[in-house]
Amino acid sequence: MVDNIMNHKSIRKYKTENVPEHILQQIIEAGIRASTTGNMQTYSIIISSDKKIKEKLWEAHFKQNMVLQAPLILTFCADFNRFVKWCNLRKANPGYDNFLSFFTGAIDALLVAQNVAIAAESNGLGICYLGTTTYNAKLIIETLKIPKRVVPVTTLVLGYPDENPGLTDRLPFESIIHKDVYHDYSSETIDSFYKEKEELDFTKELIEINKKETLAQIFTDIRYTKNDNEMFSEKFLEVIKKQGFMNNE
Amino acid sequence: MVDNIMNHKSIRKYKTENVPEHILQQIIEAGIRASTTGNMQTYSIIISSDKKIKEKLWEAHFKQNMVLQAPLILTFCADFNRFVKWCNLRKANPGYDNFLSFFTGAIDALLVAQNVAIAAESNGLGICYLGTTTYNAKLIIETLKIPKRVVPVTTLVLGYPDENPGLTDRLPFESIIHKDVYHDYSSETIDSFYKEKEELDFTKELIEINKKETLAQIFTDIRYTKNDNEMFSEKFLEVIKKQGFMNNE
Repeated sequence: MVDNIMNHKSIRKYKTENVPEHILQQIIEAGIRASTTGNMQTYSIIISSDKKIKEKLWEAHFKQNMVLQAPLILTFCADFNRFVKWCNLRKANPGYDNFLSFFTGAIDALLVAQNVAIAAESNGLGICYLGTTTYNAKLIIETLKIPKRVVPVTTLVLGYPDENPGLTDRLPFESIIHKDVYHDYSSETIDSFYKEKEELDFTKELIEINKKETLAQIFTDIRYTKNDNEMFSEKFLEVIKKQGFMNNE
Repeated sequence: MVDNIMNHKSIRKYKTENVPEHILQQIIEAGIRASTTGNMQTYSIIISSDKKIKEKLWEAHFKQNMVLQAPLILTFCADFNRFVKWCNLRKANPGYDNFLSFFTGAIDALLVAQNVAIAAESNGLGICYLGTTTYNAKLIIETLKIPKRVVPVTTLVLGYPDENPGLTDRLPFESIIHKDVYHDYSSETIDSFYKEKEELDFTKELIEINKKETLAQIFTDIRYTKNDNEMFSEKFLEVIKKQGFMNNE
């Protein structure tokens, strides 16, 4: 079990082979067993295999080829639409048009997604999370006909792997753990925690190819820039509002 | 593996027995293998076992007894503090004082939390998520000395179970799945999807004890009310801002 988790690798090349229906069902059932706030299950999973839909999702996800290659794209949404409709049919007055409810649905959806990821990998499938879901939530909402009170929060690409990458490096155990209370980092601890990552051959190549001085600059200047983050922050907050989670109903 | 996931139950009564250090280490290592945006690992885990700290956390978590009973309380945080400190030491100009970065860190932290939950259960431990983390984030931040650029997003209670509850009911598979695109619910589908839940003896008792007409009213009038949700929304947005994720630095 834990072996399975320990061997997780994001897969970015997929075979065209379909995922059998009974395996997909088993994986989703595993997802549904995840903890959920008050057992409200305030999430939905949209499973897209249609070629035209996948082409539009491919554009939303920055044209990453795996979105076209893999047979299934799973979009995980914070969903209060189902619950609110139920309340309205049961003489109950729902108060879920607010940020806390959005975040509650997002937590629900993300725990389900991780169960799905683990169950998929234990069935020999490969997965990759798409962070682009929040960047282009508006386009995804249009493509997948997502109604009010529903916001996509993450996406899993799912299929049989056509590559076998090595494990990705991680920061040392001690760098992400705090005992009893948070112990802030000194310059010395930061240096020691990032040393291994910075000394990888892979890192050195990356710095050279990108003509940068440090690995951190690759993140701040190329991969996750201030301008992009600010633009996507505004867009995502706008989506959360438009979908009815900022008391604007 | 999937069997393990399928048998998940939230545990609310714990033995006082400690969790051996090597098991805790194994569980956290499993957490760290979870996917993380750009391999930035923008999360931290605060592991609290000190009696005084736990007493304060118990207050923050609405005085739920399991917080005192269980040997370990794990607070999962979206954390850009470590990453930003690293950028600043490496001539890189970080742009992570925005909502997208907070949400990215939250996704990271929640995927780690679910890995930890599954690894814990596969080692015979019990877990329970505490949704109260976002409600009382401010008090948790003070208690755990959490610095700027860090926001607690969920908490796991961890220890050896002192109860063996049955599986919790879930909505039918078809109610949370949408094929290709979102298919909105009709009153008829809502009725059929909630029928089983509404007909449980447990539900009928709950309605009687609470003197309500419907199960939905227990959610809207008692458990997750509009007033509470709006108050906690404001408080949580204020925390996100105060911790430096709304371009206010």
